[in-house]
Amino acid sequence: MADPIESESRKLLGRLREALAESSAGQARLDRITQLIASSMQTEVCSIYLFRDEETLELCATEGLKPDAVHQTRMRLGEGLVGRVARTGKVINTADAPATKGFRYMPETGEEVYSSFCGVPIQRLGERLGVLVVQSKEARVFFEDEVYALEVVAMVLAEMTELGAFVGEGEALRARHTLPVMFRGSVGQEGVAEGYVWLHEPRVVIANPIADDPEIETKRLREAVDKLRMSVDDMLSSVSNETADKDQREVMEAYRMFANSRSWLRRMEEDIAAGLSAEAAVEKEQSAARTRMSQVPDAYLRERLHDLDDLSNRLLRILTGQGRDTGAALPDKAILVARNIGPAELLDYGRERLQGIVLEQGSVGSHAAIVARAWAIPLIIHAAKVATEALNGDHVMVDGDQGLVHLRPDDTVVAAFRDKIAMQAKAQERYSGLKSLPAQTKCGAVVALHMNAGLIADLPSLENSGAEGVGLFRTELQFLIRSKVPRRGELAAIYTRVLDAAKGKPVVFRTLDIGSDKVLPYMKREDEPNPALGWRAIRVGLDKPGVMRMQLQALIRATKGRPLTVMFPFVAQFDEFKQAREHVFSELEREKKLGHVLPETVRVGAMLETPSLAFAPRQFFEMADFISIGGNDLKQFFFAADRENERVRRRYDTLNVSYLTFIEKIVERCAETSTPVSFCGEDAGRPIEALCFAAMGLRALSMRPASIGPVKHLLRRVDLTEAKKMIDASRESGVQSVRGDVMEWLRTKVDRA
Amino acid sequence: MADPIESESRKLLGRLREALAESSAGQARLDRITQLIASSMQTEVCSIYLFRDEETLELCATEGLKPDAVHQTRMRLGEGLVGRVARTGKVINTADAPATKGFRYMPETGEEVYSSFCGVPIQRLGERLGVLVVQSKEARVFFEDEVYALEVVAMVLAEMTELGAFVGEGEALRARHTLPVMFRGSVGQEGVAEGYVWLHEPRVVIANPIADDPEIETKRLREAVDKLRMSVDDMLSSVSNETADKDQREVMEAYRMFANSRSWLRRMEEDIAAGLSAEAAVEKEQSAARTRMSQVPDAYLRERLHDLDDLSNRLLRILTGQGRDTGAALPDKAILVARNIGPAELLDYGRERLQGIVLEQGSVGSHAAIVARAWAIPLIIHAAKVATEALNGDHVMVDGDQGLVHLRPDDTVVAAFRDKIAMQAKAQERYSGLKSLPAQTKCGAVVALHMNAGLIADLPSLENSGAEGVGLFRTELQFLIRSKVPRRGELAAIYTRVLDAAKGKPVVFRTLDIGSDKVLPYMKREDEPNPALGWRAIRVGLDKPGVMRMQLQALIRATKGRPLTVMFPFVAQFDEFKQAREHVFSELEREKKLGHVLPETVRVGAMLETPSLAFAPRQFFEMADFISIGGNDLKQFFFAADRENERVRRRYDTLNVSYLTFIEKIVERCAETSTPVSFCGEDAGRPIEALCFAAMGLRALSMRPASIGPVKHLLRRVDLTEAKKMIDASRESGVQSVRGDVMEWLRTKVDRA
Repeated sequence: MADPIESESRKLLGRLREALAESSAGQARLDRITQLIASSMQTEVCSIYLFRDEETLELCATEGLKPDAVHQTRMRLGEGLVGRVARTGKVINTADAPATKGFRYMPETGEEVYSSFCGVPIQRLGERLGVLVVQSKEARVFFEDEVYALEVVAMVLAEMTELGAFVGEGEALRARHTLPVMFRGSVGQEGVAEGYVWLHEPRVVIANPIADDPEIETKRLREAVDKLRMSVDDMLSSVSNETADKDQREVMEAYRMFANSRSWLRRMEEDIAAGLSAEAAVEKEQSAARTRMSQVPDAYLRERLHDLDDLSNRLLRILTGQGRDTGAALPDKAILVARNIGPAELLDYGRERLQGIVLEQGSVGSHAAIVARAWAIPLIIHAAKVATEALNGDHVMVDGDQGLVHLRPDDTVVAAFRDKIAMQAKAQERYSGLKSLPAQTKCGAVVALHMNAGLIADLPSLENSGAEGVGLFRTELQFLIRSKVPRRGELAAIYTRVLDAAKGKPVVFRTLDIGSDKVLPYMKREDEPNPALGWRAIRVGLDKPGVMRMQLQALIRATKGRPLTVMFPFVAQFDEFKQAREHVFSELEREKKLGHVLPETVRVGAMLETPSLAFAPRQFFEMADFISIGGNDLKQFFFAADRENERVRRRYDTLNVSYLTFIEKIVERCAETSTPVSFCGEDAGRPIEALCFAAMGLRALSMRPASIGPVKHLLRRVDLTEAKKMIDASRESGVQSVRGDVMEWLRTKVDRA
Repeated sequence: MADPIESESRKLLGRLREALAESSAGQARLDRITQLIASSMQTEVCSIYLFRDEETLELCATEGLKPDAVHQTRMRLGEGLVGRVARTGKVINTADAPATKGFRYMPETGEEVYSSFCGVPIQRLGERLGVLVVQSKEARVFFEDEVYALEVVAMVLAEMTELGAFVGEGEALRARHTLPVMFRGSVGQEGVAEGYVWLHEPRVVIANPIADDPEIETKRLREAVDKLRMSVDDMLSSVSNETADKDQREVMEAYRMFANSRSWLRRMEEDIAAGLSAEAAVEKEQSAARTRMSQVPDAYLRERLHDLDDLSNRLLRILTGQGRDTGAALPDKAILVARNIGPAELLDYGRERLQGIVLEQGSVGSHAAIVARAWAIPLIIHAAKVATEALNGDHVMVDGDQGLVHLRPDDTVVAAFRDKIAMQAKAQERYSGLKSLPAQTKCGAVVALHMNAGLIADLPSLENSGAEGVGLFRTELQFLIRSKVPRRGELAAIYTRVLDAAKGKPVVFRTLDIGSDKVLPYMKREDEPNPALGWRAIRVGLDKPGVMRMQLQALIRATKGRPLTVMFPFVAQFDEFKQAREHVFSELEREKKLGHVLPETVRVGAMLETPSLAFAPRQFFEMADFISIGGNDLKQFFFAADRENERVRRRYDTLNVSYLTFIEKIVERCAETSTPVSFCGEDAGRPIEALCFAAMGLRALSMRPASIGPVKHLLRRVDLTEAKKMIDASRESGVQSVRGDVMEWLRTKVDRA
């Protein structure tokens, strides 16, 4: 880039700063800016378009177009050249605008006389804010340097927009981060909550995007980059040389490669030469990288750009001195908002301090989701851009049943939402009246309702919810939140506390269910093409029995003479169960030899999570002390539809005739050998589903504590024999799912109590 | 790095070159090299250890240790400090060797008096060749610069080893690429073949790793890097600016980022300054990157390093002028050996010119595997390092039944292998005698045997194999090998030729089965956590019906009035089949309106590949004109075990009681509604499996043409009623798999004919 252009760009930015420093209103500032740009760029027209809502751009200021068009001319995202710049995030630079693809004539602006058009996006960290346009009568393509200067100006406009410099009248000039916004995500954990935003990683604010002195800024940037490199080197050397930490080292080295990227530094230095401050230069390149990131289809390239994003954040923190700790205190009723979060960080917050969690990323099976489920607080995942839009302290309502987040909700939403919460509270109150009553149907059948748990903190729910016991105690969390395999003594102590807290009610411990989708921090991640169908759970346990045996020892000791109930996850064939069961008995033998007290009774069960086990030889059913249908996994294999995949996870209904008939078949097989059978999984906690399962013959269900009331409430109102008849008729009719008929039956044949 | 050290290293390399230039024997050269290094490094000891086989290192030359120990002292990989360097590929540099972890005392060497130890790996492109060691009495840690100089020397030793400079007596000094080696891979396609290696990407040979003049070499390197950058820029700009090619662009841009990586260039320039030629410098860094690559557990980082590897290859080709085309001609009986290959490149070779394929990577479901299967030539995948070890023209025997590759086999292996081929040929001859006979069992049951196909070139097998028709015509290949969606006319022409070639025998066309694991080149790849359980096959077809409808139109036109049989893959529930079937009828209607001739009859079937469909409402079975059990997918969902995953794919036997019982249940359900049912998939072509399926009631199987003979041969010798009784007894007994009992029954109760 030639020097004269650089100083031209710097001069323009200097004038912009003066304009911004004047204490004028937002509109006046915008008007002044368009004048300055037009004069500096020697174009007849300069216009600024900003979003008035997610889909509509509004002309907010112009030099050269008809003044009446300001705040009148609007276009949808993608419409016309301006709309195309906004949609694609890419520059359009043309000498003959009317002949360019996508051109749309807007008579009110008087722009038909201008031949050249150059539009650049105004965006901040991947968020679209608007479009900056220059136009001239002369048919010319703008030089690369001129386009670059416009991009630098657009970057400053974006920062100033974020800082509120242009707040004025009309939707498009309304203060940012003040409008109500609704985010549509996916359900990670059901439930509703109202509270105030707490950002896990608060944003860095750039007070001054324009530089006084490029030399000083370049020096600041270089010093910061040096610090960044040193900190990356430090991280790298702090990871010891032993092979154990090789994985971490490799990640770090890729990091270092980026930190040393010459082109990255060069681009930022060019931005400074063009008049930006060091911080603004970092953010400009970060913004560009984010835009690229959102368009990259390959996961590995996205991750690559993500590293760069992370380094940019570190660099900004170094430059601004703003850390993660802003001095602000966690508000009462905090709703945690983050791009993503690990289980250990989440546990650091503690259950009592959070009302709900909203993540931009995450997944149903992630560790954070497991924690949220254990805590029984609503979790929304895949809420795109929520962490960019939300500010610390913003009022927020989380609807975990629908997967919605209402940020800064208006009064109608607040009222409706509070009604919903109140109704749920009322229902909960009604359910608590049922606490000590059995889930007995009108026909006299009794369904045992158990709860799922995964933390000691879950155990108080055993009493509150009226559950008859813990139908599934997940043992993963104790392994996931540590950096090393927990010791046997630690585990035994935890399991003892669980049994103590259960006060004699039965607790079914499930052995470690891990695999390449749920990986322990200290386990080498194996790359599997389809982790759900991979080396996981009991497959790992049998192939590498060390950890499983240690866990069994801990369980045996934890009982201190009380009954032990243990089940193995993901059993797909008879021999797997036989072998796993042998481990239990050989550990019992070992403990006996060591003179330890043995459990009073030992029951060993299997989780039926693969279709194959339903067809196992009769001898398997005879040997198993009980069987627990693991509905979440079973359903995804039954329909070959990944429950983590938005494109297919809602494709197959739980009340699909095939699935119910299959469940019925499993119940029948268990009945032949009088093997106790229960169902655990999310579907067990949905009243309609629970009713249908009971009609198929299931007499034990395990669910999250909050579902026990609603399920019991419905079961107590129905006659299962009638329900079975209705479902049979529905199945005979050839429908794909019995849901419609069940709903109709409930509406017409069952009292609403 | 300081200049004096650089010139010291250069001086040493200069002397090494002189030593190598002398026309002495390999041993003499090695001895001279150890002397030179010891004197240059001012250490008492310098030794070179080379591998005598994959697991054992041998002391091959030493200055300072007892001369008698040469060729006597040996250690296993990982044993002692030398073994550890070899295993980890990492330097060990210690002032107190006896106190260092892993030290092992070798009395015959007299090395106990030496305190300091520095060992660096001798390796070439990730392949371990040996270890270079210096030792001294003085307790010192070698400086970083000294270690670096040793690494440079080790690089030269590796190149010279590869070039055969050290060939001498004894295993460890035997000429490289001359020993017989066996590779154990996975079966991609069964069959056996003997032939000669043809490398898809022949290796670049570096004749002179040591530089005369660093300045010239630096200039050569920089010029080559500039060319590389230009070629990457060219690729980037040749990709048009339209969004359609954005994906490609992003990949290219990541590429460019690497091509511009300052640290990469800097390291290579340092290598040159230390005395290497430009080529050797590139290869040294490539080698280091490969070693890192093999240790990286994360797929995305591996891919990242893979880009760098690819760029290194391009750079080497620019520097050496050696291209892919070496001027050599494809040998007769060529066996293609490659790291990996795409379907279009493979089809370029043509079926007639290849006897077999051996890949280092690949997967069972890859496009290359589909082509190999269509061609019915043996394919071995996951044969690690085969492309590094094999040379063009090497004698090679491929055992696609066992997944073995015998490279440069010795006479015993050749004899045994030829016996095997002869036996198979003899059996094939015997089978051809059965060609016109039905697969009728002793009890009179007739099993229809059909063949699978995917190319027009497969059709001649219809006559040769004695198949009664094409039970599965896969339509993916026509889509996969083009860069655009094929036009309807093209497809119709192909399908017409298929029907013509079938000469009236039935052909069952399966509509496009694609998804995020099998992606068309022109489809955007969606990132799915478990592609096998994702948005694929009929799910894509129903959600985006454009391509499916076009394909149905092509099929209808192709019949030219003959019967049409079409089936939909991956149907998981009733409505999916209903909707897909509706598409067939609405396309028929449309064709009728257009005045085209309609098929004489139309049969619409469903593939049963998910467990759910087996439990569909009776109405589904009534509506389907036929059902084809897709065994490959069905089995993986049934057991939740990915057939692409080595860790689990062999875990569950096809003759598992559960699976056979499930197949029997499907047959029963089809019988209730008299719906024709067949089984297609790899298991259908295995005689024992085919027998058991027939015993479960299946009367139609579809398999690769080569399997028809063996299956028919066995079926004609058995009584299915007896077989069924035997299997029932086996199932009753509680075994996990009936395989043992079936084998025993065949041994004792069935005549060997």
